[in-house]
Amino acid sequence: MQGDVLIREVGPRDGLQMVRTILPTQQKLDWCRLAVAAGLHAVEVTSFVPAAVIPQFADAEAVAAGALRIDGLDPSALVVNLKGTRRALEAGLRKLTYVISASEAHSAANARRSTDMAIAEYARIREEFDTLFRTGEAELAFGIATAFGCTIQGAVSTERVLRLVDAACELGAEEIMLADTVGYAHPDQVSALFVKARARAAVPLAAHFHDTRGLGLANVLAALQAGVRRFDASLSGLGGCPFAPGATGNIATEDLAYMLEAMGWKTGIDLPALLALQARIRPWLHGERMESAVVRAGLPLTMASEESH
Amino acid sequence: MQGDVLIREVGPRDGLQMVRTILPTQQKLDWCRLAVAAGLHAVEVTSFVPAAVIPQFADAEAVAAGALRIDGLDPSALVVNLKGTRRALEAGLRKLTYVISASEAHSAANARRSTDMAIAEYARIREEFDTLFRTGEAELAFGIATAFGCTIQGAVSTERVLRLVDAACELGAEEIMLADTVGYAHPDQVSALFVKARARAAVPLAAHFHDTRGLGLANVLAALQAGVRRFDASLSGLGGCPFAPGATGNIATEDLAYMLEAMGWKTGIDLPALLALQARIRPWLHGERMESAVVRAGLPLTMASEESH
Repeated sequence: MQGDVLIREVGPRDGLQMVRTILPTQQKLDWCRLAVAAGLHAVEVTSFVPAAVIPQFADAEAVAAGALRIDGLDPSALVVNLKGTRRALEAGLRKLTYVISASEAHSAANARRSTDMAIAEYARIREEFDTLFRTGEAELAFGIATAFGCTIQGAVSTERVLRLVDAACELGAEEIMLADTVGYAHPDQVSALFVKARARAAVPLAAHFHDTRGLGLANVLAALQAGVRRFDASLSGLGGCPFAPGATGNIATEDLAYMLEAMGWKTGIDLPALLALQARIRPWLHGERMESAVVRAGLPLTMASEESH
Repeated sequence: MQGDVLIREVGPRDGLQMVRTILPTQQKLDWCRLAVAAGLHAVEVTSFVPAAVIPQFADAEAVAAGALRIDGLDPSALVVNLKGTRRALEAGLRKLTYVISASEAHSAANARRSTDMAIAEYARIREEFDTLFRTGEAELAFGIATAFGCTIQGAVSTERVLRLVDAACELGAEEIMLADTVGYAHPDQVSALFVKARARAAVPLAAHFHDTRGLGLANVLAALQAGVRRFDASLSGLGGCPFAPGATGNIATEDLAYMLEAMGWKTGIDLPALLALQARIRPWLHGERMESAVVRAGLPLTMASEESH
């Protein structure tokens, strides 16, 4: 028997940041409610970036406030600086992910600062957290974007990523997330990097894979084998980074949940309910690329019955 | 440094058996020529089934004869009975795969005979081979379809598959291929079954995965880890089984080759030439579902340069 694996739905954040449709706040919150009903409790609900940069997140405060009122939801949000962090905390969120690009080129394009300046910003945010909260009251995850390569600069060295892992440990991050922002990772690379990160970090590691070149679930398998038990995914593979040329969507939540459940891992997700959620939300994002093999093919006979308990 | 992995292109056989377009013989042979130019030497070029059953393969003799004249091509074909085998051998082919369904229900639908009767037919074909050829002059692979489950009957027991593996060994098969005909396999199942098969069989094992539920490349990773070094794949994931409801295409050759090459395995394939081949063939199959993540996203910067040697 396998153990627990946490799937974090990042559709309302990563999934929405490149779509043309601006979803009304109410639909974003309905999405969160349907997610909880499908057993998907951890949801990255929004991003506290300036509305001028990503108009989709102009309602971040309202989404956060609504999300906090949904029973059973464990909402988190993305932040990229101290200002956004203060907004998120004022809105009542206590679980945030701060993302730093391992690639200098992507850091400049995405956050308009060097990687070192981004680390310094994390330190300032950490200080704010330590002033406001006692241990366990709030979490500030440290996400490392372009950890497996970058569409602007190409290769990103392992040493560089591990230096960021060390910085995250020193600064007290409650979680370290390695992100393949542009879909460059392959299984051996995933395995090697997570094994090395694990040897340095005592806190939970999370993986965030994009399925740009089709290796998303193979990379999940490699990360699972390296001990990773937290995975980001996005409904029907929505997503991408507006500042990483050629980036496409995340691994599809439906396919990830299917693979893990088929293998006997406990995700807490009710697959038929998740497929029903997809059918509800798909029309809201008319014209957007939404792809899930399990949605297309359906659950196997061998599983459909098991899942109806 | 990793070793060699053989990718066998089954597009001209599995890939074409469900498409609406009947490709002219000349285009099938052009496909084989382009495959060789891209470093893809092993190609399953046709299937010797009655033309009434699959009209696409009415030109099996002509394809086989043409394929045997292509320098560097290592052609093989699928057979399902002694009659088809005789046709294939008369056409000059010396490498055949005979497929047996582990699922009784699929065996009845696909070959109109029981699994036991299918084993008896393999024995008759084997006898023909042993009469005509000395060891090493010809190869008759033993493919086990629906080895990981069946869309008609559901689960297929491991014991049943291993009984077929034992039969293949006793009957002297030169290769044993386990096929996930309908895309039910998950990585742990793949790993467990190949490890068990390996313990019984001294001949090379091959894997044939369909990507119906998105787990194709994760299953390849699991099979690689279990020691498998031969994989079937189909251009842009073309394929499916006309007698297995819900079956969709094979893993895409482009994505498989990309994953293996990225991981350092030697496939002999020139990825840019493979992508060029795809661009040539795609218009021939206008309107058919052809999906490859690597075709859509392109090769990563980190690889494009290496590949231009």
